[in-house]
Amino acid sequence: MADMNNDITLFNELIEILLNEEKKNPVADRIEANKLYASLDLSLNESPMVDDEFKTALRDVVISTPKTATNLFFNQLFGGRQSKAVLGDLLAVMLNNSMYTYKVAGPQVGIEQEIIRKSCELIGYGPQSNGTFPTGGSMSNYMALVMARDAKDPACRSKGMTKPMVIYTSKESHYSNAKNTSFTGIGKDNIRYIEADETGRMIPEKLEATVIEDIKNGFVPTYVNATAGTTVLGAFDPIDKLADITEKYDMWLHVDGAYCGSVIFSEAYKHLLKGVERSNSFSYNAHKMLGTPLTCSIILVNDKKHLHNSFSNDADYLYQTDGDDFNLGKTSFQCGRRNDALKFWTLWKSVGTSGLTQIVNQQFELANVARNYVKNHPDYTLYSFEDSISICFNYKNIDPTTLCTVLYEHQVTVVGFGSFKEDTFVRLVTVNANNTTQDILHFFKVLETFVEENPSVFETKDEAINI
Amino acid sequence: MADMNNDITLFNELIEILLNEEKKNPVADRIEANKLYASLDLSLNESPMVDDEFKTALRDVVISTPKTATNLFFNQLFGGRQSKAVLGDLLAVMLNNSMYTYKVAGPQVGIEQEIIRKSCELIGYGPQSNGTFPTGGSMSNYMALVMARDAKDPACRSKGMTKPMVIYTSKESHYSNAKNTSFTGIGKDNIRYIEADETGRMIPEKLEATVIEDIKNGFVPTYVNATAGTTVLGAFDPIDKLADITEKYDMWLHVDGAYCGSVIFSEAYKHLLKGVERSNSFSYNAHKMLGTPLTCSIILVNDKKHLHNSFSNDADYLYQTDGDDFNLGKTSFQCGRRNDALKFWTLWKSVGTSGLTQIVNQQFELANVARNYVKNHPDYTLYSFEDSISICFNYKNIDPTTLCTVLYEHQVTVVGFGSFKEDTFVRLVTVNANNTTQDILHFFKVLETFVEENPSVFETKDEAINI
Repeated sequence: MADMNNDITLFNELIEILLNEEKKNPVADRIEANKLYASLDLSLNESPMVDDEFKTALRDVVISTPKTATNLFFNQLFGGRQSKAVLGDLLAVMLNNSMYTYKVAGPQVGIEQEIIRKSCELIGYGPQSNGTFPTGGSMSNYMALVMARDAKDPACRSKGMTKPMVIYTSKESHYSNAKNTSFTGIGKDNIRYIEADETGRMIPEKLEATVIEDIKNGFVPTYVNATAGTTVLGAFDPIDKLADITEKYDMWLHVDGAYCGSVIFSEAYKHLLKGVERSNSFSYNAHKMLGTPLTCSIILVNDKKHLHNSFSNDADYLYQTDGDDFNLGKTSFQCGRRNDALKFWTLWKSVGTSGLTQIVNQQFELANVARNYVKNHPDYTLYSFEDSISICFNYKNIDPTTLCTVLYEHQVTVVGFGSFKEDTFVRLVTVNANNTTQDILHFFKVLETFVEENPSVFETKDEAINI
Repeated sequence: MADMNNDITLFNELIEILLNEEKKNPVADRIEANKLYASLDLSLNESPMVDDEFKTALRDVVISTPKTATNLFFNQLFGGRQSKAVLGDLLAVMLNNSMYTYKVAGPQVGIEQEIIRKSCELIGYGPQSNGTFPTGGSMSNYMALVMARDAKDPACRSKGMTKPMVIYTSKESHYSNAKNTSFTGIGKDNIRYIEADETGRMIPEKLEATVIEDIKNGFVPTYVNATAGTTVLGAFDPIDKLADITEKYDMWLHVDGAYCGSVIFSEAYKHLLKGVERSNSFSYNAHKMLGTPLTCSIILVNDKKHLHNSFSNDADYLYQTDGDDFNLGKTSFQCGRRNDALKFWTLWKSVGTSGLTQIVNQQFELANVARNYVKNHPDYTLYSFEDSISICFNYKNIDPTTLCTVLYEHQVTVVGFGSFKEDTFVRLVTVNANNTTQDILHFFKVLETFVEENPSVFETKDEAINI
């Protein structure tokens, strides 16, 4: 315990350094990948390291790690830091429970179940619903696909894949759909990528036409993945219309809300999920829109029997007390499982559902600020749409891949690019609810200033990429 | 940032309370599952909670959560807390990088790769080896199985399962093998459970006979799962002899070292893995024998092309700089992925490989203490074997399931039971390297004292279980 107290003290010192650095130097000095091992002492050796040297090595690592919580980080579908959620996750590290049994997780089981129960209520799932905390959005989609496969052919669990199943997702959906189809034994050739309309939403008529064609050809339509917040444009597939089709042809409807499913907390934006109560499963990532530390993914299942059918197991050495409803390992992919629920609970409990509403609404407000800025400024071209927190644009005809790379390499701001149909553009994501209008305007300002002061960098694409 | 500082202060207050509680009251007061929601305020509500009330609610949760780091927790294949690893994981929460790209993870990529590189060296994998950090031991086994399946039939990734594959594992292996076989589309009926010898080790001759029979019947032998530390007895399958068979019949050999693979750090015990360099993949959990917080699982792959073949993907919006070797998302199951490497690095860097050796050896020494105690005490019967940190025993003919449940319900100590062949017994796991000889003797003392002072509890099984 003396050791633990010393290391808590060291943690506090390093955190003070980190928080000051984040203010002073919001984009960390970049170390080129091929110079990493020469720049930092990352080596692992036979002998222990003297305390002072270890502290220095660790401080150097902390300072030079990309800073994802600052007001100039816009690269990912996460960013920023809700302090009450951080508190919960720090405690989860100290408590170190595994979530499989009530005997070892105790009240943390109730915390996880309360989040799931309230989430199910918010989307209109009934008393037979339940859920679990997968390790991320890809795993949420994977669990949904396994349940869909097993629901269509219950013998598959014991006999293996025998039916020619096909699944459907939009061209704009997450790449995990392809990987997951391979993992499950369905095979990537058996995904049908359905075209999206001009705003990035799956076209239901195209879906139905493809399903009819597949049935005619002897395939077994099994699963439709609808996206609530596509990776690039942040678009919402029309769930209600897709549900008409999945119900008609007896397919599983999963709503992948990893990015923007958290709109369930906002009266102003939950209409974007209209029809979600008709889905078979729905997932969202609190580590994206709600600002908890990574990872905090939730999958909700309209009828919990599917979770049990696909993921339960018997293990007498493990499940020794307290019954199935409290032994969560019976409905998870994993055996040992980290506590990803406490961080979300400390946030939700302290700020209330109304606080989560504000967090969600703030991101859409910041998106409006950014979109209006782009629209009203003649040097910008806008590529994204209303009701999205992804603002996609180009600036002064500068190649967006060059622009993003250069802004990153010069520690100006961290932002990424994306493509939709024929266009490639910068994708600004207003997912950090701690940002203000000023922070968003600041982003455009630092971008414009950098371009103005470094005209030579942008003369030709090839040169720029190599700087 | 003001909020963050306040919450760091609150974290420090709660940690002080927790560490004191762990000393004062090493087994948390148990709340019966069906009284949980009435005993603690876990409810999530529309309104925010007043700071003081929130603090009280959170303190109550912390205090009543099962304590896995104390000297009376022996229930799981993890326990205890290496403070330098805790430090790293607390920092990982604050830094909050996702491990998919160098752009967003920076030096953390090098940290993960250094751990993998050194681990590969330790087991004798060559320069073509690499690995990744899955979310746990089940996921490690799953990734190995997917690679084996795809290596046997590369078309499977695109066309789906078409060959009648079978896989092999010992009857004593982890239950994830069954689940994983279902998930991959191979099907649970296509697992062959190979008999173990009287010390819990897979019998190679039985394996080969089964493989020959399967080939005769038109099946495609694909994968052998060897276990380094079986869940109940902590036994090590004979890797060298299994490798003779997998090489002869062209099968993938995976060594599941989730529990005891960390013996790679001990010259005294790494002979238990003799032949591991001949395997195709090997996994171990630093959150088990090495005492890092959950989860810290590593899978190593003898030829990294298999990781790429089964898990890579293209996603232009994600992989924008720095090349494949630094963009770790191309070899992970997940997309967004928590940083599970930093905690292991802070531990390893500070104590050195020699410190990890001591951590591993200490557990075997504690196991010897426990085994000798059981052997030399006429009221005990021993069911486990040398070279294992699982000590399995019964006491005074008391039904072990009753004994474990009662000890748990009375907050005496937390320990579980297990079975091997016809016997059921208490399973004491000496996985907490912070424990001393005294702590182990203390365990037996509290057990014996409780039994002596509460004879009525053990009169009949049924009554005992209902107390």
